[in-house]
Parts: sequence; structure tokens; C-alpha cells
Amino acid sequence: MSDPLLHLVQAGVRYVDLGRQLRTGMPQSPNHPAFHHSLPRRHGDMERADGGSAANDMISTGTHVGTHIDALAHVSQDGRLHGGADAREAGLGGRFDELGVHTIAPMLRRGVLLDIPGLLGIERCADGYEITVADLEAAAARRGLEVGAGDVVLVRSGWGQRFAEGAPYVGLDSGVPGIGEAGAHWLADRGVHAAGADTIAFERLAPGGGHATLPAHRVLLVEHGVYIIEALDLEELAREDRHEFTLVLIPLNIYGATGSPVRPLAVFAQ
Amino acid sequence: MSDPLLHLVQAGVRYVDLGRQLRTGMPQSPNHPAFHHSLPRRHGDMERADGGSAANDMISTGTHVGTHIDALAHVSQDGRLHGGADAREAGLGGRFDELGVHTIAPMLRRGVLLDIPGLLGIERCADGYEITVADLEAAAARRGLEVGAGDVVLVRSGWGQRFAEGAPYVGLDSGVPGIGEAGAHWLADRGVHAAGADTIAFERLAPGGGHATLPAHRVLLVEHGVYIIEALDLEELAREDRHEFTLVLIPLNIYGATGSPVRPLAVFAQ
Amino acid sequence: MSDPLLHLVQAGVRYVDLGRQLRTGMPQSPNHPAFHHSLPRRHGDMERADGGSAANDMISTGTHVGTHIDALAHVSQDGRLHGGADAREAGLGGRFDELGVHTIAPMLRRGVLLDIPGLLGIERCADGYEITVADLEAAAARRGLEVGAGDVVLVRSGWGQRFAEGAPYVGLDSGVPGIGEAGAHWLADRGVHAAGADTIAFERLAPGGGHATLPAHRVLLVEHGVYIIEALDLEELAREDRHEFTLVLIPLNIYGATGSPVRPLAVFAQ
Amino acid sequence: MSDPLLHLVQAGVRYVDLGRQLRTGMPQSPNHPAFHHSLPRRHGDMERADGGSAANDMISTGTHVGTHIDALAHVSQDGRLHGGADAREAGLGGRFDELGVHTIAPMLRRGVLLDIPGLLGIERCADGYEITVADLEAAAARRGLEVGAGDVVLVRSGWGQRFAEGAPYVGLDSGVPGIGEAGAHWLADRGVHAAGADTIAFERLAPGGGHATLPAHRVLLVEHGVYIIEALDLEELAREDRHEFTLVLIPLNIYGATGSPVRPLAVFAQ
Repeated sequence: MSDPLLHLVQAGVRYVDLGRQLRTGMPQSPNHPAFHHSLPRRHGDMERADGGSAANDMISTGTHVGTHIDALAHVSQDGRLHGGADAREAGLGGRFDELGVHTIAPMLRRGVLLDIPGLLGIERCADGYEITVADLEAAAARRGLEVGAGDVVLVRSGWGQRFAEGAPYVGLDSGVPGIGEAGAHWLADRGVHAAGADTIAFERLAPGGGHATLPAHRVLLVEHGVYIIEALDLEELAREDRHEFTLVLIPLNIYGATGSPVRPLAVFAQ
Repeated sequence: MSDPLLHLVQAGVRYVDLGRQLRTGMPQSPNHPAFHHSLPRRHGDMERADGGSAANDMISTGTHVGTHIDALAHVSQDGRLHGGADAREAGLGGRFDELGVHTIAPMLRRGVLLDIPGLLGIERCADGYEITVADLEAAAARRGLEVGAGDVVLVRSGWGQRFAEGAPYVGLDSGVPGIGEAGAHWLADRGVHAAGADTIAFERLAPGGGHATLPAHRVLLVEHGVYIIEALDLEELAREDRHEFTLVLIPLNIYGATGSPVRPLAVFAQ
Repeated sequence: MSDPLLHLVQAGVRYVDLGRQLRTGMPQSPNHPAFHHSLPRRHGDMERADGGSAANDMISTGTHVGTHIDALAHVSQDGRLHGGADAREAGLGGRFDELGVHTIAPMLRRGVLLDIPGLLGIERCADGYEITVADLEAAAARRGLEVGAGDVVLVRSGWGQRFAEGAPYVGLDSGVPGIGEAGAHWLADRGVHAAGADTIAFERLAPGGGHATLPAHRVLLVEHGVYIIEALDLEELAREDRHEFTLVLIPLNIYGATGSPVRPLAVFAQ
Repeated sequence: MSDPLLHLVQAGVRYVDLGRQLRTGMPQSPNHPAFHHSLPRRHGDMERADGGSAANDMISTGTHVGTHIDALAHVSQDGRLHGGADAREAGLGGRFDELGVHTIAPMLRRGVLLDIPGLLGIERCADGYEITVADLEAAAARRGLEVGAGDVVLVRSGWGQRFAEGAPYVGLDSGVPGIGEAGAHWLADRGVHAAGADTIAFERLAPGGGHATLPAHRVLLVEHGVYIIEALDLEELAREDRHEFTLVLIPLNIYGATGSPVRPLAVFAQ
């Protein structure tokens, strides 16, 4: 066992689970097919001659459900995807050959938590609050951290506390806190690989505005090729006061899709 | 950055992807709903006032599709699940509260590849060949490895070379190579945490026998609580001649389901 | 052409369509998987050598969506289905062999419209209004009609005017008008074959009560074996002032299901 | 009760069901998502305070499954739909606004059965047999019938006897009997409204040719706007020796879809 990674892992690592549990009825964006799960076969339905039985599952769902990652193919601007490809032509065949979620490599990267309520001394950011560049910089500086190229940056608004409430978490009427266009530029300027948040649309939604205008998506996905992770559970990470970690995120390798449910982990050796 | 794991990761790690790509039409067991993907919205369908557009996905699928992991709730014997719970009662409510796939913790563990064709000096094991205990022991000994408690053991038959052929990979008529009941006991006796293979049913299928009799599933899932991983892609790992590694496997956290598609990685620091 | 039915049909019949159009996003009960439609293949995705191309569909849905019929297997009371069968055992195998929707014969029957707003001289019944037995009797008497054995009786509340509004049509908070337990007994006493309404739950929902208590379902489905049709569009029929007609309703023959979307027609020879 | 249609119906009509039962695992074209049904909730899963319980369904499916009808939007030729519209533009938005299945009016029309095995004195037509114009004309003449404008013509090959066999019914390797391009022109020349058959692709499939070349689809759907009905069960109708009847066919009103499962009835007054 000469591999130092395996040596570390064998010595014992721990993780904080940043993914939401996938359940029928969980809150989600009305823009996407909802997650439904059923058991077509249960034990007791039939038994083989040898006394064995197998139960199984049936699922229908969008990919932008639960905690999930947006592929670059998800969003276009003025008819173009990231890199300039014609967005309509790119989807021919019912799949995105070029920028689909299958092109997102699994991530084992430095993760940084920017805890805005922790910075501001509040429980969570207010409905529709736009997290400013000053907020982001102060949250990093408070922990002595710098956001660097290739990092995965997770912005905590505290809104994830409302996940169990359902519709209020989606916040179509109330608005939802998050970064705006300025914050997206700040992240892109630092060369981050992906950015995530504990809300359903990642970025700030103005009260009453629904999910229709998403400038941070444009900046990150289209202009800079930065992946977006949504509906993260960042509460335990904040409680544990961990702000720098190994982020492990493995998208499903769905050929040509615009996103994938994921279960990111913040992993620690000590 | 004092965490040694993060230090290693920042220094650079690499991985071999052990998961199959999820595509409509890929081979799969006829026992489960097939994987289907569609784009309900493509770019060009509508554009918002600001020039933005979002494409999205719709998926219907079983959970035992592509590379996937079996939860302990998947199989019962004589009406009982692992640990003795009544299998029929356990599924009440349309979900397995106790042994569903949500109870499988993400894995960062020692992985061991037992390469049987490599051992036998053949391209791949024959249709319906039962991989013996002697094969397993010799494959480990050849690399100076021991299978230990908590390990994830991946048994390569070479059958994965046929994945692209479709129906022949499923092998309903031909039979499929794999371990049998004896091999399952050998793995369970060593206290492995999970066991995987490059075939659709993990264990040996006799020619003409279909998928009806699965003694290794009984031994591992029901009698010993060992998870099973199916339809792995082990070809690259064998080509690279890597037999010991850090196995990273993160099931989707689907409440109460009997399995989950996964994309396991074999990760190396050097 | 000696068949008198064919003679009539050839001479010309007309119909009023009583079914709602199935569309992604239409209002529906939160108790059931929503209707989603997508085109996996569109024209332009690929063309065969001979210049031909085929587009196709993918649907995920419950069966209690849009205008639909409830099979007797849908509801149980105190663990029993209509006729006394054990309700839990009846669903073994993941299907209802006995009282599933496949056991509902296609209907070509006398249909009777009982137009309550027409009777009361109002646009539509108020939120949560319980349509009384006196209302039902007066609506029939006003047209000189009697409800008879084997008829299909459609009770119009006018609530169908709100279908296009979405959530208000579902009425989880507001309540929804309809018959109650007394009205259900009145219908059952007359030996009707099926009963329908222009609301999502057929029967009256008290304001704030959600969809949890459904006594008319118990009386009709469980106690008397009378099918229930929900989310009908009865507006045009009322506008045309037609109260007696040939009702044609053909459920999908889904083996073992608890319901089916339907598109009932009121047909007239003149 | 002055309506003569209602008078006839009340006097008693009977029907022969021409639709196949929808069941998980039934044979179907590999070009379309398969039909899957599950019960997310069964009785016994939970009981309301009042002792009531509701079971429900979850379905994922294509629309070209079981007995079904093809909308005109299903097929294009050289980039054009029936009437000349650009086929790619017509599907924008993920739905066919113009020629989708929602534009097929429910049918109460003269139906004519052309029983080819009955004519030829055989059990069923051979694999890949092309039913000729002479066959069609002789089958009609034998019963003294003429095919007229607006009729729905059902061509029986006897292949429906194989439905229960599964894959042989689909006939990808063997070929399947049916009309060819000449037969399609003959039907179109007579101005039929729709044409159906007891096979999965309606038209003749050459042995070894798969489902790739479908000239009768082109002639009927694209060139003449004649609907196609597939996978009919015509066995009972032939056994009863009924060749002229009232055909009742009501597609689901799925906005923008390319087809719909249907359950057509042949109805008789006497």
C-alpha cells in the first residue's frame, strides 16, 4: 500500500454530506419535471422457487432536482452556448454532445465555504437579499482564506434551513437570497471551477420575480464556463465551522443531459 | 491548508472512471424499467426577454440501470431481509425505511481488483464460467494483495468488453461468467464491505438460466449485509495494471429505494 | 348497411368533448404524479436514407390526471375494497387483478347533466359549497328528467371555469364545491353506473380541509361500486343547454391500475 | 328521450374491443419508450383517521405503445409534414401545435374490416408477406363491401395471434406482413379517414429490414393526411365474421404529441 492517498483513507477520513435526500414531494423548481419514486415490485409480490425475492424501483424525474449540478449546455445567451456554439444546433438529436453533463469531470478539488450569515451574525439572509462582493470578500478574509483558480466555492445564505418547509424554500413570491451579477463576476475573475449555494436557483431572486431572470447563470455558465451547484445543504458544514476542505462531487454520466443530481461531500482527513 | 488530504488533492490526484455512461438504449436487465432521457425544452424553444434560454431534461428509469449498487433491501430470502426483518412489512409505504439505498454511506475505501482473465491469460472468461475460490485467491496472491475487512473488491471477468454489443452483454441465453455461491462465501468470510463485477448480474449466470437464481446475492445481501455493485467498467483499470486503489463511490441518497446508479472512481495520488 | 347504429352515425352525429386537454403544467391533485410530456426525437434530429423522419413522445404521469375515471380499486375503507376483498392483499403484485381500471367496461350509456349553477341562477357554486340532495332533485326536475339505473350522472358546479387558473382550481385552501355524503347516497340509491363532476376531487372539499376526507368516494366506490369521473369540462354542455345524451367513455385498458385518463363525449344524433 | 341515438343505445348495443391491454412487458417497437406501470401507494401503506385509504399509479411510457394512433406530426418526408410545413420548425417548443394528436377528432365512423387470412383461407399471412391491392379488393368484394370516403379501414393479417409471444410479434428479424406502398395508395385513393392493422408497424416489414423503411407511412401520413392505427386486436372481430360496423375511437387529447394509445371499439346495435 504505497499510495499516500490510500494510506490516508485507510487511516480514516470523515465527510460532511452536502446533498439533500431525494424524496417524492421535496421542494423543487416548477420549471422541471418533479422527482417521483415508486416500488413496482415489493417483497411478497412473488417469490422464486428457491425462496428468494427482489424488490425494485421506478423513477421519473428531471435532472435539476434535489442537490444538482448545471452542465454548461443548460443555459444559452442570445442563441449561443459557452464557447460560441449555436445553442439550437447543439441540442439536435435530443442531447448535447458537446457541453452535456457527461463532459463534467468528477471533482476532487479544494472547496471553500463562504458563510454569509456567519459573517453577518444573523441566522440567515433575508428574502431576496443580494449577497455583495464585499460580503464574499469579508467572509473569505474572516477565515484567512483566498479563493483560487480551480476551487469550488460554496456560498451559504442560510436559506437551506427552509428546505423542509417546501414551497417557502422555492420562494417564488418571497424572493430568495444569493449572489447577483456582481458576485458572479467576482467568482469568475478568481477562476473558480464551480460555484454552489444552498438555494434552488443559486443566485438571488428578487421578491415577486419568479425564476425568470438569472444573470449570474449567464455570467458563470455561458460567459465563463463555471459550473453551478444548487440546493446544497450547508448547515452542518457551518455548524462545524469548516471553511476549507476536499470537495468530492461526481455527476452521473448522463450522455447529453443538461444537469445531474449530485451528492457532494466535504471530506477531511482530520 | 493544514489538512493532509487536501494537501494531497491539491498536489494532484488522478482517477479511473469505473462507471458506464447512462444512455437510452444501453443494455440492461429486463427485470427493471429501462433508462430513458429526453429534452423537454431545447434552446430555441423560447427565449426570455433578456436573451437567455434554458434547456432541461426528463428521465424515466429504474435504479438498477447502468453501473449501480444494490441496497440490502433489494433482495429477501424466505420472507426476510438482512438482519431478519419481515421483508413485506419493510416495504410498506412504498419505500424501505430501514435498508434502503439512503442507508448506504458514501464510500472512500480501499479497493482491490481481482483480475481473473489477467490471471488466466485469456481475453475474457467464457460464457457461464464460474469464477472459483482458487481463482480469487490466485488473482490476489499474484499481486501480493490480501483482501481485508472493509475493502471493496471488484472481480473482473472481462465480460465488460461486450457492453457495447447490447443484448449479448445481458447474456440471457448464453450465460455470463462470475463468482458463484462459493465465491460469495469467500468474500463474506473476509469481511468485505462491498463487492462488484463487470457484468449485469454480478454473479455467474448459467447458460439458459436467465436471471432467476442468484445465490451470491443471497449470501452477500441477505446473509452478510455486503453491498453489490454491477455493470462496472473494469477494462481501463486492468489495462493500467492497477490492483489496489482508493475507491470512491457515492450512491444517490434516494429515500427508501432498493438501489442507485453510481459512478465509482478508482483514485490514485501517484 | 343494415345496422341502425351505423345508419345513424353515417347520417351524422355530433359530440361535445367533456375531457380536458392533457398538458404539462395543468392543475392536478398533489396526491398524484404530475403529467409530463416531452419529445425525445423531433424532426431534424436525424433523417433516414430515404428522407423520412419520425418524431416521438415520452410521458410520465399518474392516472388521476386531467379528466379521469376512478376504478373501484382506488379507494378502500377499513381495509376493504368494494365487495369486501382485503384491500392490501388485492394490490399484491403491484396491480389490482380484481377491481383495476381494466375491469371498467367502455361506456355507451345514457348521460344526464345536473346543472346546479343553472338551477341556482349563478355563475358557479361558491368555494366549499355542498350541493344538496334538494339541489340535485330540483336540477333534474327542472328539465323533466329522472335519474335512472345505469345512468352516468354529471354534476356541474361551474368550478370548471377556473381550470385555466391552475392552483385555484385545485382549491386546497379555498375549498371546492360538490356533493357530499348525502348526495352520494342519493346517486347510489338511484343505481347510477358512474358519477362525474367538473372538479378535481368530484366531491365537496371544505375550506382548509385539503383532499384528506372524501366521504362521497367511500359511499360510491366502496359501498356501492359506482365509478367516479373527475375534472370534466361541462361548460359547453351547459351553454348548449343539453341535459340528456349518449355518454361515450372508454378508459384505457391498463391492467391493474387504479384509474385512467379519459376523454368522455356527449354524443347527439340531432 | 327524443334523441334516436340515445334511444338505440338504451335499447342495447354491444361492442368488440379492438384494443390491446396495456401491461408492463408487452411487445412494442424498440423505437419508443416502453410502457411501465407501478403503484406508488397501495392500500395498507397508510390509512386516514376515518379508515379510508387511496392507492394510486405512476406510469412512464411512449405514446406509440399498445394499440395506438399516429398523429400526422409523427412522420415527415424531406423535411416536410403533411401540408408542407417545415417539420423541424413545427416541433419547436417541444410540441406540435399544428398536427399533434390533439388535432385528431374523436371518431364515430363507418369501420370496414378487410380480412386477408379469411380471404386466403389461411390462419395468418406469412412473415414479411406484402398484402396486395388485389387482396384488399377481393377481401372487400367477398363481403359485398366498398371502401368509401371517410371510412376507417382495418386490415387483418392474422399477425395479432402472435401478440402474446412478445418479440416474435415485433418481428425485427422475421419481417411482418402488411400492406406496402401500393396498398397505401389504394387506401388513400378511396379517401379513407384512417387505416389500421393488427401489427406493430401497420405496414409490411421485409425480413431482416427492421423498422427503418416505412413507405406506407409516408403515403398515408405525409402525402394524404390519413391517420394510422397500429397493434389492433382484430381476432374476435374476424371470428364473429363482422366486416362493417361503427368504429368508435377517442385519442387522448395530449397537446402536441405525435400519437396516443387508444382503445377502439367496433359497436353494433344488433
